[in-house]
Amino acid sequence: MLSTLDLTQRIPKETAKPELRTLKARLSALQQTVKEHKLPVIILFEGWSAAGKGSMISSLILTLDPRGFKTYSILPPDEAERRYPLLKRYWEKLPAYGSFSILDRSWYQDITTLAVEDKLSRQEVLRRTESIRIMERQLADDGTLILKFFLHISKKEQKDRLDKLEASKNTRWRVTSQDRRRNKHYDDYLDAYEAMLQNTTVSHAPWHIIPAHDKTTAQLMIFRTVVSSIESALAQKADQEKLVADPSAPINLSNPERLLPMPTLSQISLDKTLDPSEYDQRLKDAQQRLSQLHNKLYRQKVPLILAYEGWDAAGKGGNIKRVAAALDPRGYEVIPIAAPDKTELNHHYLWRFWRQLPKTGHIAIFDRTWYGRVMVERIEGFCTTRQWRAAYQEINEFEYELAQWGAVILKFWLHIDQNEQLRRFIDRQNTPEKQWKITEEDWRNREKWPQYQEAVDQMLQLTSTRYAPWYVIESQDKKYARIRTLELIIQTLEDVL
Amino acid sequence: MLSTLDLTQRIPKETAKPELRTLKARLSALQQTVKEHKLPVIILFEGWSAAGKGSMISSLILTLDPRGFKTYSILPPDEAERRYPLLKRYWEKLPAYGSFSILDRSWYQDITTLAVEDKLSRQEVLRRTESIRIMERQLADDGTLILKFFLHISKKEQKDRLDKLEASKNTRWRVTSQDRRRNKHYDDYLDAYEAMLQNTTVSHAPWHIIPAHDKTTAQLMIFRTVVSSIESALAQKADQEKLVADPSAPINLSNPERLLPMPTLSQISLDKTLDPSEYDQRLKDAQQRLSQLHNKLYRQKVPLILAYEGWDAAGKGGNIKRVAAALDPRGYEVIPIAAPDKTELNHHYLWRFWRQLPKTGHIAIFDRTWYGRVMVERIEGFCTTRQWRAAYQEINEFEYELAQWGAVILKFWLHIDQNEQLRRFIDRQNTPEKQWKITEEDWRNREKWPQYQEAVDQMLQLTSTRYAPWYVIESQDKKYARIRTLELIIQTLEDVL
Repeated sequence: MLSTLDLTQRIPKETAKPELRTLKARLSALQQTVKEHKLPVIILFEGWSAAGKGSMISSLILTLDPRGFKTYSILPPDEAERRYPLLKRYWEKLPAYGSFSILDRSWYQDITTLAVEDKLSRQEVLRRTESIRIMERQLADDGTLILKFFLHISKKEQKDRLDKLEASKNTRWRVTSQDRRRNKHYDDYLDAYEAMLQNTTVSHAPWHIIPAHDKTTAQLMIFRTVVSSIESALAQKADQEKLVADPSAPINLSNPERLLPMPTLSQISLDKTLDPSEYDQRLKDAQQRLSQLHNKLYRQKVPLILAYEGWDAAGKGGNIKRVAAALDPRGYEVIPIAAPDKTELNHHYLWRFWRQLPKTGHIAIFDRTWYGRVMVERIEGFCTTRQWRAAYQEINEFEYELAQWGAVILKFWLHIDQNEQLRRFIDRQNTPEKQWKITEEDWRNREKWPQYQEAVDQMLQLTSTRYAPWYVIESQDKKYARIRTLELIIQTLEDVL
Repeated sequence: MLSTLDLTQRIPKETAKPELRTLKARLSALQQTVKEHKLPVIILFEGWSAAGKGSMISSLILTLDPRGFKTYSILPPDEAERRYPLLKRYWEKLPAYGSFSILDRSWYQDITTLAVEDKLSRQEVLRRTESIRIMERQLADDGTLILKFFLHISKKEQKDRLDKLEASKNTRWRVTSQDRRRNKHYDDYLDAYEAMLQNTTVSHAPWHIIPAHDKTTAQLMIFRTVVSSIESALAQKADQEKLVADPSAPINLSNPERLLPMPTLSQISLDKTLDPSEYDQRLKDAQQRLSQLHNKLYRQKVPLILAYEGWDAAGKGGNIKRVAAALDPRGYEVIPIAAPDKTELNHHYLWRFWRQLPKTGHIAIFDRTWYGRVMVERIEGFCTTRQWRAAYQEINEFEYELAQWGAVILKFWLHIDQNEQLRRFIDRQNTPEKQWKITEEDWRNREKWPQYQEAVDQMLQLTSTRYAPWYVIESQDKKYARIRTLELIIQTLEDVL
């Protein structure tokens, strides 16, 4: 794609300048429509050093109202960033609905320059490419417009520009030995770029390769693309919002072979109990063992994610507390998930979870999770049918990405029956220090037990994978449930560590 | 304070255990009151390695509902953190109103262990101590309860504990060579701790020194302090909210000698214009010069903060754009300040600004600023009279801290008269592509011109300092205003760089 590009293209200034003025006025007006229609826009720039990314970004952002965009320079990950999944820092920089994120370099670094310099295996490059492809598809499905520009210049042009920068006292510092090295090995990078462009041009996020020898020409091509892409994205968005999905059609996953067979809730007997006389000793033993494993996990830098879901009053809080009691507070965090706030609602539903991942060697205990999408959001109509139906696949992909990074993931559904819930609700209402735990909403949710049961069954069938299995924890007897959970965690960690 | 502490204190387990149980139940219930009354609580732990900070924090957080607290382990700042003011990372970790931040080590590292190891000058330690004192006072004034625990053990006890940790295969890795070194030079650290405790025990944030040889005793003393402090803070908060301040009483600043004399708005003639034929050339020259200075600033790692305030329609946007056009987009950010969102309203008003500071070598252009506190918040009653009156001092302190860090700060008030504003409002209303810029709120604000003028005058008198001066920019002629602003920035940077 690059080697066949005509780099001598040049649009004469006399025609380019007035067209640019018109496009800038158009873009400035379009920004208000983008905001109104809540369209998120990513504009990312890749390309050679000294190809002019900075000045292209500058001309774009000078056209935009600062209240509606953010710019980011993406450097190679620093030590702190390396302790998280590669994609985390990109998810964090996604635009809110109705605004722009403009990126100077991007996730494509990880499969181009960094791949060349860190001498990544072909397999690792493919893996990262796949992760990127999935991320972009998820964002596009969420309505994000993704504009990818590659600024191309020849080896000689790059060398000339570096020479010119170096010749002036003021700009000499901008030319690093790395730039020189990359220019010298231009062809190696060219190969990496070619492969990247080939493998990541998809209809919902195509690459726009810009011949960047002539600045005005490049600028004009970029503005034309930005304006026309936004216009068509806005039109498409309006169409898409009219689509209706059938809630009962079968859901097809792309990797059904990764699923584990799961029982339905009605098949769970709920008769397990634990002799109270055994509890104290087994709790103590399990906590001691878990504490040792936490040490080991920390040293081996394995991240652990514990995801808790379950009926209201099933005992999540008490269960989590027994796990947490075994852990060093410097190495774990309990992350309570409530309804999303305004900023969170203005992003992809997975955005807030990407931001809260544990670093390597740490433990994140989620008290409720991303599965809200296929339970409360589904049942209360907080998302469309199309959205919750797509979520099973998206969540599997999300967890797969975490597993590939090295995370150990366990998911618990704390299960009780309706009578037991009623008993606990009444107990909460009658005990002054527990009253804050019970709200009107809990009673309302209870009335929707059958809908929830259906949603939970479907969730268990479609999202229990070998890399992130669900465990239904019988919780009629809280003590039994605590020991069972602790022992499952211990067993998994013993297998892994 | 440390050397005279009786480390042999021990409360017998038989009486300690039941009291602890009561205190835990009490704390758990109090957390709901803390939330209801929106009390922010900081609990920080300092002390020797192996003194038991981890297990104290663990027992505290196991008592609390995870929805109401966050824990933080404070390590020495990494490379990325070192590019910001020392206090930034602490401000970011402040609790929201009604919740707890629990810190394992804190800002006191910077004047104790790090001071010993980085061999800081006495002067630098004093400077940092003063910064901390100011931060704590500002937080306390905002109603934050600050609980500071120092866990004390003897040199011998510490050595025994390190030996014990090292003796077991599972915990050996926890003992670092740094721990050994610190134990060896125990007395040096003791001196640093003593000085720190002496200098930072204040009535609104006293140190609680805990003899930590006996775990149960330490735990009990901590829980007693936490419970009683929260109870009295809640009582005090209720009292404080009843206080009424006199809006017209004179405002006394602690460092009036730092103020620069300023004119009142009515003394500004507003007759400055620029010959349009000169504008293009002077703009070009100024932007070229600023571009070079941006280069220099970046290399010398000087942070620059440009704060824009002014009447609605005074031309802030266009002015900022002319400055931004000269800058490399990788080195600056325009930060538009709107009304605070829910999360921001749940924190100290300066919190959101601390989070948006530029790193060294970068430029932050604030389109509206922290001065909202003494303008719109004052006039619309979004804060109490006591609060906006305190803000002049707080803002001066905030800017002083940034200046001490090395930031260059310029503040612009873009000034026009009422007739000119009316003309521009009408123009906006009559021009389709400008209509989004004019809202009902602009008209409402316009009616309050006299109140704003009074507030602006007071702001200029009380917050123009030699380290962060205000410039009133005559903006009847936008072109004049742009050149004037650019030239002020250039002149300041030329003096500094």
